[in-house]
Amino acid sequence: MQNVKGTHDFIGEEQRLRRSIRNLLERQFELYNYEEADTTILNEMDWLISKYGGGEEIVKEMYQLSDQRQRALGLRYDLTMPLAKLMALNPGMRLPYRRFEMGKVFRDGPTKRGRLREFWQCDADIIGLTGPEAELELFQLALQTFAQLEIPVVLKWNNRRFLSEVLGALGVPSNMLSSIMLTLDKLAKITIAEVATELQDKLLPAPAITALLELIGRPSELLEMNSIARMYNLTEAPGYLEVRQLQQLLDQLPWLGQKCEFDLFLSRGLSFYTGTVYELFDATGSFPSSLGSGGRYDGMIGKLTDREELELPAIGLSFGLESIMALYRERTEPAGVGEVSTSCRPAPVVIVPIGDTLPDVMNTALQLRAAGIPVQTEPSGRKLGKLLNSLYARNIRYVILLGEDEVKAQIVTLKDLEQRQEFTLALDEAVHNLTQLYL
Amino acid sequence: MQNVKGTHDFIGEEQRLRRSIRNLLERQFELYNYEEADTTILNEMDWLISKYGGGEEIVKEMYQLSDQRQRALGLRYDLTMPLAKLMALNPGMRLPYRRFEMGKVFRDGPTKRGRLREFWQCDADIIGLTGPEAELELFQLALQTFAQLEIPVVLKWNNRRFLSEVLGALGVPSNMLSSIMLTLDKLAKITIAEVATELQDKLLPAPAITALLELIGRPSELLEMNSIARMYNLTEAPGYLEVRQLQQLLDQLPWLGQKCEFDLFLSRGLSFYTGTVYELFDATGSFPSSLGSGGRYDGMIGKLTDREELELPAIGLSFGLESIMALYRERTEPAGVGEVSTSCRPAPVVIVPIGDTLPDVMNTALQLRAAGIPVQTEPSGRKLGKLLNSLYARNIRYVILLGEDEVKAQIVTLKDLEQRQEFTLALDEAVHNLTQLYL
Repeated sequence: MQNVKGTHDFIGEEQRLRRSIRNLLERQFELYNYEEADTTILNEMDWLISKYGGGEEIVKEMYQLSDQRQRALGLRYDLTMPLAKLMALNPGMRLPYRRFEMGKVFRDGPTKRGRLREFWQCDADIIGLTGPEAELELFQLALQTFAQLEIPVVLKWNNRRFLSEVLGALGVPSNMLSSIMLTLDKLAKITIAEVATELQDKLLPAPAITALLELIGRPSELLEMNSIARMYNLTEAPGYLEVRQLQQLLDQLPWLGQKCEFDLFLSRGLSFYTGTVYELFDATGSFPSSLGSGGRYDGMIGKLTDREELELPAIGLSFGLESIMALYRERTEPAGVGEVSTSCRPAPVVIVPIGDTLPDVMNTALQLRAAGIPVQTEPSGRKLGKLLNSLYARNIRYVILLGEDEVKAQIVTLKDLEQRQEFTLALDEAVHNLTQLYL
Repeated sequence: MQNVKGTHDFIGEEQRLRRSIRNLLERQFELYNYEEADTTILNEMDWLISKYGGGEEIVKEMYQLSDQRQRALGLRYDLTMPLAKLMALNPGMRLPYRRFEMGKVFRDGPTKRGRLREFWQCDADIIGLTGPEAELELFQLALQTFAQLEIPVVLKWNNRRFLSEVLGALGVPSNMLSSIMLTLDKLAKITIAEVATELQDKLLPAPAITALLELIGRPSELLEMNSIARMYNLTEAPGYLEVRQLQQLLDQLPWLGQKCEFDLFLSRGLSFYTGTVYELFDATGSFPSSLGSGGRYDGMIGKLTDREELELPAIGLSFGLESIMALYRERTEPAGVGEVSTSCRPAPVVIVPIGDTLPDVMNTALQLRAAGIPVQTEPSGRKLGKLLNSLYARNIRYVILLGEDEVKAQIVTLKDLEQRQEFTLALDEAVHNLTQLYL
């Protein structure tokens, strides 16, 4: 017996850490006043297909099933379509609508390169707020969250409208923009020669290829947005005005601005992005995968809900839970891991019955738990010395021994395994002392 | 467009309350030192079928699908099978293993009577601990959690082994025990005449029917476990010894014991229970459905993992999130609701830019959030009077106004909409004061 390929069970320390990260994200979303949504995993297949129209790759990777009455259903592929569904089913939603959702999505695709078939997405989106306010808010949410996770990051950003203007100025025909951006998005992963081959395969006109390769080959200081705009006569173009405005605001916000880096070639694979796109990376450079990403998809919600006239602005942020976990695993010195996990869940107090004291064990446990202290009770009849050694090995520090004599005298024995100390005190006193230590 | 029948999206206040309940359950599980598991929703269909062997109704209600390579998969039906899978895939698990899991399960069944096709289960189980310790621990966990939820409950319990002994003494053949228990389980919902008809339809011998109907008809004081055991000569029977031992312990634990009620006819529908079974109900009697339930299923984990020789004892507890929500909705005076939801999420401080102060708004928001205060920023350009009225209507109390003059003077205006007061102070001071108020 084994798990379905591309799916995993999580237990023990690993799950504790995953839960800590999700709880930390939840607290951050709440500090930014995002409302949680919990959407259905099962969806009408017809609706899923019609809405991802054109995205045949996506439809191919959707898990399809039918119920007992032969209705065609599909498992959700992401959390963006369910958000569009919410907007359609709740037309009176007050805008701007800030929502977060954390939940599993399903993709019946290849599992190579760490891609999973069933995995968590952790998304925050704002519907109904134009730039640059929404951009600044999500950048800040992303960066403050990674600061809390103790992961130094750099946020690379661009704007697909500006990139389109630049590519247009280089001679890329407008019907090829999306396709050429897909190639540029691979720049970090493939060589310039391979880029050139791909551009030729896509039948980009030769002068445009030459101009594009020249641009790609430039040192990064020559890719600064203002020089680019001047060079290609784009100083009044709408995309340029957007990136300039956002950059000017970032310049006025040092904490935020110094972690953000404009990157002319970042475009993100997905074709539905309309403006700002961004991606978060480990600032030390030692972990290569993206840790999170997002972008603006103005108009898409209206299309998905058949109310195109709405022209709803929208921008999202997605945290990569699996990448964050992978980065933590690679850390030799797991500062962030410890910080995140232990702060949420201290080792329990262990209560050990000696003789026939089960009711008193239960009663003592009840009082400690009512005071907010985690407790684990041991079954009776185990050898005390061996048990204490095993508890110590599992990082248990405080142990309460409850023998029949103690019960009669209304006292407990509290052992501190770390300091190798032992105290005899009244139960109330033990609860009080442990409360001080734990809370 | 609509949601699939039997599935729901949750947003706004309702989701906030659902999340608060789940977070409260999570804290309780941790106080009892249960480890979280997060198991796969997709499973190999062959394994699911072989393991639910005999439960044809269950297999019929399982959502089946296949992936691109035509592997037969199924969506999980409950959280107990995934627990058995964990035990099988992790043979070295330290026992007793206390695990909790909260997640969605899927059932392609009839949706009448509030049954859903996609819903949350919130389960805690102990594997490898015999009674009565494990029973007491789960009873306490259940009752302490409902106390935290501010729902007065009564825990009705029985033992299927004892019930089998009683039914055997009444002349019920051993191969009919499970089936007759299913009928008894309906006692609260159908009349005695209907019970009689069902017993006849099941071809129970006439003397057994007479004896059983006589027993059912007795006033409850004559159904006390010790009188029953004496009457049917069961004073040395193993099932009776189990219930007597548990009752004696409950008698020594007043907080727990006074909320527990032995109920000779409780049996729970599922056939896999082997000993103690229990169910939690609203103590006021005004909400009829079960709010949670559980039972002992010794041996089943071994069978499911093909290691029957293990004879692993196991007992579970399942909280009924949908029932708890339904009870809250029916409450005219929603004390528990408010307690649970508002304690988790206070209304945010709202920052309003007046004029061109976006960077300062973002910076002020950053500082407040870093101090742990939830903040929502407003876009600029809205009419102040109208905006303040709308914020007040949404229970927003604290508003920070940031105009260009304030920014120059390095101050902010803090409004208390509830007290109709306004203060002019330095940002640090405002952060400090709000921190005192919020944390």
